Amino acid sequence: GQPLLLIGGPCSLESEQLGREVAETVSKICKKLGISYVFKASFDKANRTSISSYRGPGLKKGLASLARIREDLQVPVISDIHDISQVGPAAEVLDIIQIPAFLCRQTDLLVAAAKSGKPVNVKKGQFVSPWDMENAIGKLRDAGSDKVMLVERGACFGYNNLVVDMRSLPVMRSFNCPVIYDATHSVQLPGGAGGSSSGQREFIEPLSKAAIAAGIDGLFMEIHPDPDKALCDGPNSIALDQVEELLTKLVKVRAAVEE
Amino acid sequence: GQPLLLIGGPCSLESEQLGREVAETVSKICKKLGISYVFKASFDKANRTSISSYRGPGLKKGLASLARIREDLQVPVISDIHDISQVGPAAEVLDIIQIPAFLCRQTDLLVAAAKSGKPVNVKKGQFVSPWDMENAIGKLRDAGSDKVMLVERGACFGYNNLVVDMRSLPVMRSFNCPVIYDATHSVQLPGGAGGSSSGQREFIEPLSKAAIAAGIDGLFMEIHPDPDKALCDGPNSIALDQVEELLTKLVKVRAAVEE
Amino acid sequence: GQPLLLIGGPCSLESEQLGREVAETVSKICKKLGISYVFKASFDKANRTSISSYRGPGLKKGLASLARIREDLQVPVISDIHDISQVGPAAEVLDIIQIPAFLCRQTDLLVAAAKSGKPVNVKKGQFVSPWDMENAIGKLRDAGSDKVMLVERGACFGYNNLVVDMRSLPVMRSFNCPVIYDATHSVQLPGGAGGSSSGQREFIEPLSKAAIAAGIDGLFMEIHPDPDKALCDGPNSIALDQVEELLTKLVKVRAAVEE
Amino acid sequence: GQPLLLIGGPCSLESEQLGREVAETVSKICKKLGISYVFKASFDKANRTSISSYRGPGLKKGLASLARIREDLQVPVISDIHDISQVGPAAEVLDIIQIPAFLCRQTDLLVAAAKSGKPVNVKKGQFVSPWDMENAIGKLRDAGSDKVMLVERGACFGYNNLVVDMRSLPVMRSFNCPVIYDATHSVQLPGGAGGSSSGQREFIEPLSKAAIAAGIDGLFMEIHPDPDKALCDGPNSIALDQVEELLTKLVKVRAAVEE
Repeated sequence: GQPLLLIGGPCSLESEQLGREVAETVSKICKKLGISYVFKASFDKANRTSISSYRGPGLKKGLASLARIREDLQVPVISDIHDISQVGPAAEVLDIIQIPAFLCRQTDLLVAAAKSGKPVNVKKGQFVSPWDMENAIGKLRDAGSDKVMLVERGACFGYNNLVVDMRSLPVMRSFNCPVIYDATHSVQLPGGAGGSSSGQREFIEPLSKAAIAAGIDGLFMEIHPDPDKALCDGPNSIALDQVEELLTKLVKVRAAVEE
Repeated sequence: GQPLLLIGGPCSLESEQLGREVAETVSKICKKLGISYVFKASFDKANRTSISSYRGPGLKKGLASLARIREDLQVPVISDIHDISQVGPAAEVLDIIQIPAFLCRQTDLLVAAAKSGKPVNVKKGQFVSPWDMENAIGKLRDAGSDKVMLVERGACFGYNNLVVDMRSLPVMRSFNCPVIYDATHSVQLPGGAGGSSSGQREFIEPLSKAAIAAGIDGLFMEIHPDPDKALCDGPNSIALDQVEELLTKLVKVRAAVEE
Repeated sequence: GQPLLLIGGPCSLESEQLGREVAETVSKICKKLGISYVFKASFDKANRTSISSYRGPGLKKGLASLARIREDLQVPVISDIHDISQVGPAAEVLDIIQIPAFLCRQTDLLVAAAKSGKPVNVKKGQFVSPWDMENAIGKLRDAGSDKVMLVERGACFGYNNLVVDMRSLPVMRSFNCPVIYDATHSVQLPGGAGGSSSGQREFIEPLSKAAIAAGIDGLFMEIHPDPDKALCDGPNSIALDQVEELLTKLVKVRAAVEE
Repeated sequence: GQPLLLIGGPCSLESEQLGREVAETVSKICKKLGISYVFKASFDKANRTSISSYRGPGLKKGLASLARIREDLQVPVISDIHDISQVGPAAEVLDIIQIPAFLCRQTDLLVAAAKSGKPVNVKKGQFVSPWDMENAIGKLRDAGSDKVMLVERGACFGYNNLVVDMRSLPVMRSFNCPVIYDATHSVQLPGGAGGSSSGQREFIEPLSKAAIAAGIDGLFMEIHPDPDKALCDGPNSIALDQVEELLTKLVKVRAAVEE
């Protein structure tokens, strides 16, 4: 079968130095474990819970850093866009363009991303059923894109809570596209800390193992050297020094499923 | 107390003629019943379920029609925007700018709308708790807006279904802003018809009465002369010739609550 | 139309004296307001969250107290049963037999209650859809009962939370049976206080008004002279001295709907 | 670590012959794969959706068949009880007493089961949070039982649908009791076929693998030689001739997790 894919990095590109540190370390781990690696960091967090939340370096500075990390470390990069005007500049740098979950229904954004010619990674909205994501794929394919991936990151379950419905994984794989499990956003508690989201880091490992066993093509992980000091999504990020141990376990589960 | 507010019109501005017909008829009914009326129609449906769905007349043509309806019928108009670039042109014509539910977390869009100086009407995302909408208000107020309204339009309840949690109405009113109940989108079944959404028109009346009784400042309704032929949201729209009867009942309930 | 029905009293029959106090006061209020009144108190709380919770006077002592209250105050009484063996003794005293929500799928209990010849009031399980309650009615009617009522008391909405889906009221009324809205259990937060349930008393009034406006035949309310000292369900009970004011408001809403 | 446990058999003990066939075949498979096996069949389905549904052989005949299967095939047996009066006779035959999900809050039933001295297996109600199951364990332990198991069988997710929240597995294991994943009831669609429940057999394998990978002590499976002809829960049962292949895969996943 295909090697496992890992899309991972700090939630926000807090600094180029932070990005490099994560990309370099995770890249080595992935080579060792036979995992394909794509570095991910956001240049702008456009949908933070509160107006006072940290947002990132911005489009220009962020893409420049991503370009240097890509070039220097020879690692493909992915980031998320929030506005059609960002597609052009993003497509010049990124290997894959990501559509945030809240925006997975925005037709123009999907079409513009598809028309860039770059592969598009769409996160399933917390408010969308797995089978309805076939419509997102239809929008992308209709706009000429043949490289599409979908991400499971949890579904609304009452207020301020998400549940991962593992049925979504085989359902979305049936659309003939790679399906990624977002191991860290799925344990987020949206708005759970009042002016920001909290998270349940203790469930990253069991849910990741479960998703691997249920059958996925890749993982998405927010990774930070010091999650408690992360400027974004710290409560659900995984610590950089725990990545190798976790991936080692996950690779074993995958081998057992693929045998 | 304040008179009840009605925001209503065809989901999409299918034609200026259609808009005029609805605006004129509903305006007369509202005058008769002592209801404040704002005409609503979308110039672009940017988040339809499927790529092949009808989208509307577009920004330029749509705003021009809204401007003429506003001028000729002396009725305030509201429409929804999906991109920061639309704020400027929209603010020149509209009396109120509306933020769609899927976009209620997009900070830049909220801030741009607030900075236009126009009142902003934010629909609560199907994935957001009522108390978390205080953060949306915070973003708007921080950007200088003091005229903010919130809309309840249902919360995710499993897949392809919405539930109206009437507790949200007093919760959001406690933020000192008018709260509107969206009587027609709340009975939508998202994605319930495969490539489009279906709806449960039979629940418009009981749920509207319930919301009025629980305590709201206004209603939002998609109104069409022939809902079964509407190009958008027909299954959950109310027929133009049933509006007067429904509003008459609702005004009675409101009087009973306000006594 | 029919007069409104109120089923109300302390959650648990903590003492006969408490029951009398509530029954007498509420009975007078209901007479004044033209409401039919049925006194309700449980003789045994068989499904408390925790083993150490208070349960009540028990079958024998509880039914004896209910019989005296019924006789002395000339008020019909209802209570809930949890076991087939309780049907016989209960049917000798009670005017209506109630099936708890958790037990609404227990065929034998429903059949035994129906065969007693007494009217049966079934609470809709928090895990059952409104349309599936037609099967409960089918079980009762098949066993010869023609006097059946259904109660809405909230549906599971994530963990430790209930949502009242007001669509359930017209759905269940379509089965040609009276539908009761449980105004106090519906604002319960199951397990919300660790070893017991908590509640949101502030939502009793707006949700009751909403249910009345949506269309119901009756209300169910846990009423206690001092809810903060109640041995059961205090956090979601209404204070005895607030009942008249609330019912007065609700009667007005009902009149507005029925006009 | 401990060997995996399998609790499995036909939903209802349609006939002793059917029970024997399943018990014998599954017992051999489990021996081969190093799995501990407990035969399960219900003698009475007391909570079927509809009054006309098949219920089973009844207490006396059913327990007698279970006793013979136990004796002849040297396999432990488990069945579910619905009434305190069944505890005595059940405890004479069964190795483990099971409490159905709908009844997991019925204190007296839990206490009576615990006092029988037999191990008790409690299914988590579809309406109960994983952490609230600690109260069920408290009731059992308080009544003197030190052999308690918990079962995950899905949580309410909107109407007529269940979702398996895999977080529940580590949460319930933290109560120091074995946790079982119910592989077939979890893919049930309650009431999904009008007068009966339907199911999604295609998700049995991916969800079972996921649960094993997340970490469980055992599996629960409804197994029938011809699920399409089963008198109960056919749509979510697994075919007897597919059990070995599935368990072989699951044992591999478990080995990968335990290494």
